[in-house]
Amino acid sequence: LRRLKDYGNDKMLLTVRWENGTLILIDQTKLPTRLVYVKYNKYQDVANAIKSLIVRGAPAIGVAAAFGLCLAAFQSKAKSTSGLISDLKVAYARLKSTRPTAVNLAWALDIIMKKATEGTSVDQIRNEILDRSLRMANDDIAINKRIGQNGAQLISKNEVILTHCNAGSLATVGYGTALGVIRAAKDDGKRIQVIATETRPVMQGSRLTAFELTHDGIDVRLIPDTAVGHIMYQDTISRVIVGADRVLKTGHVFNKIGTYQIAALARRHSIPFYVAAPISTFDSKSKLDDIVIEQRDRNEVIKIGNKIIAPQDVKVLNPAFDITPPELITGIITEKCVLKAPYKTNIHKLLNSNR
Amino acid sequence: LRRLKDYGNDKMLLTVRWENGTLILIDQTKLPTRLVYVKYNKYQDVANAIKSLIVRGAPAIGVAAAFGLCLAAFQSKAKSTSGLISDLKVAYARLKSTRPTAVNLAWALDIIMKKATEGTSVDQIRNEILDRSLRMANDDIAINKRIGQNGAQLISKNEVILTHCNAGSLATVGYGTALGVIRAAKDDGKRIQVIATETRPVMQGSRLTAFELTHDGIDVRLIPDTAVGHIMYQDTISRVIVGADRVLKTGHVFNKIGTYQIAALARRHSIPFYVAAPISTFDSKSKLDDIVIEQRDRNEVIKIGNKIIAPQDVKVLNPAFDITPPELITGIITEKCVLKAPYKTNIHKLLNSNR
Repeated sequence: LRRLKDYGNDKMLLTVRWENGTLILIDQTKLPTRLVYVKYNKYQDVANAIKSLIVRGAPAIGVAAAFGLCLAAFQSKAKSTSGLISDLKVAYARLKSTRPTAVNLAWALDIIMKKATEGTSVDQIRNEILDRSLRMANDDIAINKRIGQNGAQLISKNEVILTHCNAGSLATVGYGTALGVIRAAKDDGKRIQVIATETRPVMQGSRLTAFELTHDGIDVRLIPDTAVGHIMYQDTISRVIVGADRVLKTGHVFNKIGTYQIAALARRHSIPFYVAAPISTFDSKSKLDDIVIEQRDRNEVIKIGNKIIAPQDVKVLNPAFDITPPELITGIITEKCVLKAPYKTNIHKLLNSNR
Repeated sequence: LRRLKDYGNDKMLLTVRWENGTLILIDQTKLPTRLVYVKYNKYQDVANAIKSLIVRGAPAIGVAAAFGLCLAAFQSKAKSTSGLISDLKVAYARLKSTRPTAVNLAWALDIIMKKATEGTSVDQIRNEILDRSLRMANDDIAINKRIGQNGAQLISKNEVILTHCNAGSLATVGYGTALGVIRAAKDDGKRIQVIATETRPVMQGSRLTAFELTHDGIDVRLIPDTAVGHIMYQDTISRVIVGADRVLKTGHVFNKIGTYQIAALARRHSIPFYVAAPISTFDSKSKLDDIVIEQRDRNEVIKIGNKIIAPQDVKVLNPAFDITPPELITGIITEKCVLKAPYKTNIHKLLNSNR
């Protein structure tokens, strides 16, 4: 029996799990109405699961793909290391093609392939890459727990925390980043109420965050994205915590569309605005202008399910993410420390100490 | 043949129309997929239409209800004025009960009932209240046209104007308030592009504004409510124009949820923020604390059509409207003038000159 370490909370949602030679994923397309775990024994099915958003969230996808390569190693009938590597390369290409823009996916697959090429026998390769994948999964949770602890120290006894999108268990292997901070604060005995924005157009707030927090017995209220300003105006919110897709060395944060306007509104109302992100999210190379903001499918805006909610020929702007400038960010919570301004200097120090 | 005056544009959507003794409404529940006109010959059916949101928008509801009373007068078999008034009182109560919080509904019905009680014969009452209702409908469009002209003077040759919710033809008898300004600017030969927010939770932006502007050949792009800040950050928007549910004598504007945060973001980006509202929207009596912000049905947030998009037992905050303080408002466009700060003084002057 090979399984993830138990992190002391049996009820914690584990989005990606390895058990008895099988990969188990939560089928996120069934949420919030049903919590369904699906077993995978073939890497091809894992590739389909990533492509069809059964599993989503950068860290979760990376680890799922790593386990996908493990399944490919066990599926392979190769008798030689070169035969096995050859089979793994086919699986690698297939898995990598599922979400071409996901940085974590390539990162995770490259680590596993590198490990595989170092092996000296078929069995050793199988064992080594499975161990490395299990470590990757455990590391993800461990990092999130440290982010949680670092963030929880900032939080007072009674707080109402607003979060956007889903930076929770369901975006990671488990525990989450922004929601990890909330879990850790609650575990410290603090009374936390969460306000979750529904996060149009893909509704990760309604479908995932509201589900995940309800599941864990954390007090959550769902609001339309249009109500953020009003609820801040009513003096309801004590803090904002969100995740990040990418943090530049200048401290500019790329995250789900809607993050920037929440940060701007928080500033207007003097509400602390925090980003929770592992160091793996920091991009020390790209400049602000290097990043192209992807336009997503117009159908996300004009349809919900099969229901058409706008004229089918109307023009749509559907940017996937936005940029929150460092001057709006009170702090960035990482597994090492809570970064504060001046971000350029402090991010530089953190990334260098981390090498 | 009794019909509304033609305002020079045959293609203009007329939300409420009287033709050949019949009330004709656009069935807004069928939008944006189908443009369906429904004929009404009985006041009871008009009451049902108001209740079921076939017609919505305060000015549109008021005028529809007035015509409902006209239908009741023609339906009545009474031979005496007292018999007719008695029948009209039944219809009045039925029509008024459909949307108890709509101020315009009671206002319009009271005007028609007062007119009815002044009549001296059954036929005279019928004619008088129909004339008064037709005048009310014409006045609504005429006021909107004047708002449009006053607003259009503010607008430059090329502008990208963001609007929220639907303050258009479909909320009024025709032409609209905020969208009336855009129509008037376009008729002046200016090149106007509109950005329409989808306006969760009820999606008046997607369903109505996007439809109405597409129908009229006005350039419109639809965005999720989460994209407002990002699109302002990209320096795309030259002006914001919204409608109003109620304007207090202090200049505080009550309008659809999401208006306040757009105003706050506009201020951050130095974008002029205008409200377009007829003088009938001004409330000279209420104080800020008098107004209770209604919480609407949670199902608006957790369901779209029959599709469940959030855990069914999750707590929801669904405020119907919000408050934009006068310091965020560049101007309020009325049929008489464009009000500027200091609002308290200038609103006082306007309302007194209007008596």
